[in-house]
Amino acid sequence: MLIDSLIKKIQKTAPIVVGLDPRLSQVPDFIKNEIFAARGNTPEAAADIFFAFNKGIIDEIHELIPAVKPQIAMYEQYGTAGLACYAKTIAYARGKGLVVIGDIKRGDIAGTAEAYSTAHIGQLEINGSKVEQAAADFITVNPYMGFDSIEPYLADCRAYDRGLFVLVKTSNKGSADIQDELLQNGKPLYQHVGELVSKWGEPFIGEMGYSAIGAVVGATHPEQAAELRKLMPHTFFLVPGYGAQGGTGKDLQGLWSKDTYGAVVNSSRGITGAFQSGKFTANEREYALAARQAVLEMKNDLGVCI
Amino acid sequence: MLIDSLIKKIQKTAPIVVGLDPRLSQVPDFIKNEIFAARGNTPEAAADIFFAFNKGIIDEIHELIPAVKPQIAMYEQYGTAGLACYAKTIAYARGKGLVVIGDIKRGDIAGTAEAYSTAHIGQLEINGSKVEQAAADFITVNPYMGFDSIEPYLADCRAYDRGLFVLVKTSNKGSADIQDELLQNGKPLYQHVGELVSKWGEPFIGEMGYSAIGAVVGATHPEQAAELRKLMPHTFFLVPGYGAQGGTGKDLQGLWSKDTYGAVVNSSRGITGAFQSGKFTANEREYALAARQAVLEMKNDLGVCI
Repeated sequence: MLIDSLIKKIQKTAPIVVGLDPRLSQVPDFIKNEIFAARGNTPEAAADIFFAFNKGIIDEIHELIPAVKPQIAMYEQYGTAGLACYAKTIAYARGKGLVVIGDIKRGDIAGTAEAYSTAHIGQLEINGSKVEQAAADFITVNPYMGFDSIEPYLADCRAYDRGLFVLVKTSNKGSADIQDELLQNGKPLYQHVGELVSKWGEPFIGEMGYSAIGAVVGATHPEQAAELRKLMPHTFFLVPGYGAQGGTGKDLQGLWSKDTYGAVVNSSRGITGAFQSGKFTANEREYALAARQAVLEMKNDLGVCI
Repeated sequence: MLIDSLIKKIQKTAPIVVGLDPRLSQVPDFIKNEIFAARGNTPEAAADIFFAFNKGIIDEIHELIPAVKPQIAMYEQYGTAGLACYAKTIAYARGKGLVVIGDIKRGDIAGTAEAYSTAHIGQLEINGSKVEQAAADFITVNPYMGFDSIEPYLADCRAYDRGLFVLVKTSNKGSADIQDELLQNGKPLYQHVGELVSKWGEPFIGEMGYSAIGAVVGATHPEQAAELRKLMPHTFFLVPGYGAQGGTGKDLQGLWSKDTYGAVVNSSRGITGAFQSGKFTANEREYALAARQAVLEMKNDLGVCI
């Protein structure tokens, strides 16, 4: 199962997923100047710039990490050219042996959720003809609409060996507005959601003891993450909020399970924008090497607490 | 303000929004056969079929209704060709004077939410050059991540006179899983979310007394909708769940406000798929006329309770 291969890859490399969330302001000038000169200030140029940037990063670090997580919003803002780049990035990363987590946070019901599933982890058929498309291995989804907003994805998870990470407790400050509301049993809402996700994932537990239906649990709430770890022993965690958002290796101490890790920690700007910090290189042409150094440094920071 | 023009359009027509959620199985054969013959079983063919179908519906009913609501998932499953059709549908509908509610239910934070906002209600700039794109007037968004998942859209709402409909109590059965959880004060979560949405919308109240930051409140929960109506007097409601999902005009009696309505009710398949019911026509070439009849019938059904 996919979740087992993700865990095995993590065991061989590190519990790190690199977020591919390109912004033009975070791409080296040498890439931008050439492509803007050739294609003008167009969405197509932005898309080509992002792909060149992502490819450089993937080529340099794919053997150090198990997975990448492209954030679809960064591509979607450049329209269909941007979304073509999102698909191309997924295909390229998978071709390099990486597991791809599409960070799409979709949430809808019935036929609508089925359509999102087809778009992102399924198989498109038109009039009985299969259409080639770049599907992600996992996608993130939003649970606010309840089980009938999750169930439509499960058929594709089964048919094509895919998985989900369902938002439970996110890393942002405002997550408290709704997720931390206390229920009548004294528990916060995110624990109730965690219990639901755990239950929904039961039929998808693989040989390593974790379900293909995982949870998003932020690194910025160490105690809450540790509680959720105990509450959800068979749920694999995708952990945002490390690095640029403030989480450190120390914050994650309550999160890990022995041997299998039980979680994979995302860093986006902290890795892909490492060249801009000046810490690893003064030469923007070495942006991918700087990303490599940042991965090794992150691995070290996480390593102390596993 | 946009919200005022929506209300004025409703007063002149009906509190009805027609969902443009095309499925190949719900498009007449005469449209499909010709385009599939010309373009093969491709996403480009599906996109052309959807646009031809949508255009027929819009041409026939645009004077009877204030707004349409394309569901992006139905387009997104056909990849970039599908999304180009989504944008083309928005542009066409706006050109016909309709308010367009992009049903995208996105939910993310900070720079990511800003990117979604740029994509769907904002203005894309690349290297200082403005890029033409089809933005919707309103979009639907998911509040699970809290205020910092809503705030990034507000700048574009202000700058470009746009609006949001935030999910509060959705029409599906599973909405109970999370939205109905009782909090320590004895109120269900959706009421707490409703209060937040009402507060977030305060700076956006227009001359007709309603905010450009509206709420999604399902037609399938009449009592809960009536409670929310009282709790959120300045929040305009987008109401799914009428027709195919089971809601009737009678279920909506507690929802309306005098004169301004305070809500707009969506029907998708009930209108666009009306020709398939056999009730209005036996000729699929009259699918748009059947949609027109279905709008008039819906107006009548709603009319009895306003």
